[in-house]
Amino acid sequence: MKNRTLLMIPGPIEFEPAVLSEMGAPTTSHVAANFIESFGQALERMRQVFFCPEGQPFVLAGTGTLAMDSAGANLIEPGDRALVINTGYFSDRFGAILERYGAQVTHLRAVPGDRPGLEQVEAALSREQYKLVTITHVDTSTGVLADVPGISQLARRSGAVSVLDGVCSVAGEELRMSEWGVDLALTASQKAVGVPPGLALLMAGPRAMTIFQARKTPVLNYYADWTNWLPVMKAYEARQPSYFATPAVNLIFALNASLGLILSEGMDERFARHTMLSRACKAGIGALGLGQVPIHSVYAANTMTAPRYPAGMNGPEFLAKVAKAGVTLAGGLLPSIRLEYFRIGHMGAATRGDVLATLGAIETALAACGYPFNPGTGVAAAAAT
Amino acid sequence: MKNRTLLMIPGPIEFEPAVLSEMGAPTTSHVAANFIESFGQALERMRQVFFCPEGQPFVLAGTGTLAMDSAGANLIEPGDRALVINTGYFSDRFGAILERYGAQVTHLRAVPGDRPGLEQVEAALSREQYKLVTITHVDTSTGVLADVPGISQLARRSGAVSVLDGVCSVAGEELRMSEWGVDLALTASQKAVGVPPGLALLMAGPRAMTIFQARKTPVLNYYADWTNWLPVMKAYEARQPSYFATPAVNLIFALNASLGLILSEGMDERFARHTMLSRACKAGIGALGLGQVPIHSVYAANTMTAPRYPAGMNGPEFLAKVAKAGVTLAGGLLPSIRLEYFRIGHMGAATRGDVLATLGAIETALAACGYPFNPGTGVAAAAAT
Repeated sequence: MKNRTLLMIPGPIEFEPAVLSEMGAPTTSHVAANFIESFGQALERMRQVFFCPEGQPFVLAGTGTLAMDSAGANLIEPGDRALVINTGYFSDRFGAILERYGAQVTHLRAVPGDRPGLEQVEAALSREQYKLVTITHVDTSTGVLADVPGISQLARRSGAVSVLDGVCSVAGEELRMSEWGVDLALTASQKAVGVPPGLALLMAGPRAMTIFQARKTPVLNYYADWTNWLPVMKAYEARQPSYFATPAVNLIFALNASLGLILSEGMDERFARHTMLSRACKAGIGALGLGQVPIHSVYAANTMTAPRYPAGMNGPEFLAKVAKAGVTLAGGLLPSIRLEYFRIGHMGAATRGDVLATLGAIETALAACGYPFNPGTGVAAAAAT
Repeated sequence: MKNRTLLMIPGPIEFEPAVLSEMGAPTTSHVAANFIESFGQALERMRQVFFCPEGQPFVLAGTGTLAMDSAGANLIEPGDRALVINTGYFSDRFGAILERYGAQVTHLRAVPGDRPGLEQVEAALSREQYKLVTITHVDTSTGVLADVPGISQLARRSGAVSVLDGVCSVAGEELRMSEWGVDLALTASQKAVGVPPGLALLMAGPRAMTIFQARKTPVLNYYADWTNWLPVMKAYEARQPSYFATPAVNLIFALNASLGLILSEGMDERFARHTMLSRACKAGIGALGLGQVPIHSVYAANTMTAPRYPAGMNGPEFLAKVAKAGVTLAGGLLPSIRLEYFRIGHMGAATRGDVLATLGAIETALAACGYPFNPGTGVAAAAAT
């Protein structure tokens, strides 16, 4: 940690030394016995982390956007209707991806910081028959948390499959795919899964696989086509070598190490720790008199916090002062309110100490910007949670 | 190197310690100043390595197949005619990718281990007007080297753009994009570029960018769409932060380190070293009485060698004995002759010592399989080159 700042953005995050050590280890062949074992184990562990014992995991070299693209390309056929439960920038993106593959997309929107209510979702689902409903578990642009079990149940009752963008949630926010009826969930390595950026992770439940297998038209995207990846995932899990495209060997060793750490912590314990970190961070932000983008605290994410700047504050200047105080935070992302807020990630390997250090740096920067408050108020409130 | 085997497959390969060290370093933000500088520098260095000062570099999280997919998705519109100069498995794949995006593909084939002659290419180009011609610089399945300047010139004269799959060549085989008239070249990180798997690299020359910009139909693949990536590449090269999908931070730091090492060695010196390694390896294989997949030595690749097994030898058993002797090699890949040959990669950070160690392990395995030869013949012939 010496000579560098604490990375508290909503991904990439601080990673465990054991994970970074796998990243830097000499690369083995993608068909070497130790790699096959590690990849196979990672696929099995994904089922546990996603709480989807009957799911089909996919690990692709790429980003969270590729994971979304892969879900869209494999599940959508031209003319299909899709409903996007829209809570921000990444919901917009999912809509754009589905449209690329020929979907007729309806967005169910809320004002920035709000989320569509279940009764609105139910009404939308009753007005039209949709094949697919997308949910953004935590929209990284707003920090709004979706009601995943509620929406998935409504989607299933309507006959649609539910597709969860879990990029800013999986392995941080509570997610129980099978129990909640989520048909596909996806994420990226660099968020709560705790691995440097470069992997797209998907877990397709039986209903998603059925839709894929029943396609009447070819998948429009070659690289993301599950037809190419499915035999490879099945082979590695059966501890057999296989080839479609060279797996990102070091990243997959790192993924297996991180999934091992996640399961050792225990999923319930991990969800509880993220809730605790989030409460501490939000208590500190609130005590400093800053608002947050999510309008109601009940649906503010546990993996991140999106505080609003005090009135009149120059955001970029403030963030530069936070960085000077040793902590890297992220600016706003949702175009309509981009300069009104900033973002703190507290997921994966983040600790209570990291949250206190972050609030300390925020206090230093607020003071340097001339914002009136009693020094120590934020960290004290966090420490008292 | 202790307690592990020497990795001499045609990718991933042995990587430089300085590159692995970047892989394992704590991850920074994708908009941190040091990352922006490193990414920008990597893009500039790519132009030098590809010998394409006026080219537009792209770095995507993904694999070499994604690089091929990205070239196909962005350059092909439904109905376009494409000619694939086919020298093996990866030429077949390029054809499949182009067809996915609506191209009418003609394959100009040769028997396994041969390549179509320039007169055949010229005849094919005169029979039909093609928009695009693909060339596999080194088909990793056969070790056959294409005549890139010859084909590119014929393609350009015919009015087609030339697209080079340089996955097993870039930064190992001589390639001078602008001088030779290659309109797009692509590769993957884990080959001669010397970075663990996880990055797709493309260099689009002006004619390729013109075709992309003149598209009348949207790119059919969302993730690979240059519309999304072009502003990001331009921003990072101008040392500005930007965002489409989170860059694979550790891999890009590693890429910049490796490109720095490549340019320090000098491109001409690097090409010469690969030629020297190849001569040594092929001299050793020949002295042991083994044939090679490429029918004529004049078009055998410098980045790899594809020896044929002696008659009657059990390939998997032989490769297991080579591995036991400390060196990992790869089996055959081209379906029609898969069990008749194996593959040795000698690119990137590979040394003359690695080639001798490889031949030594091959001799040990040949002896253990009961193959009659004078021990030391292979390594001696290599050492004498």
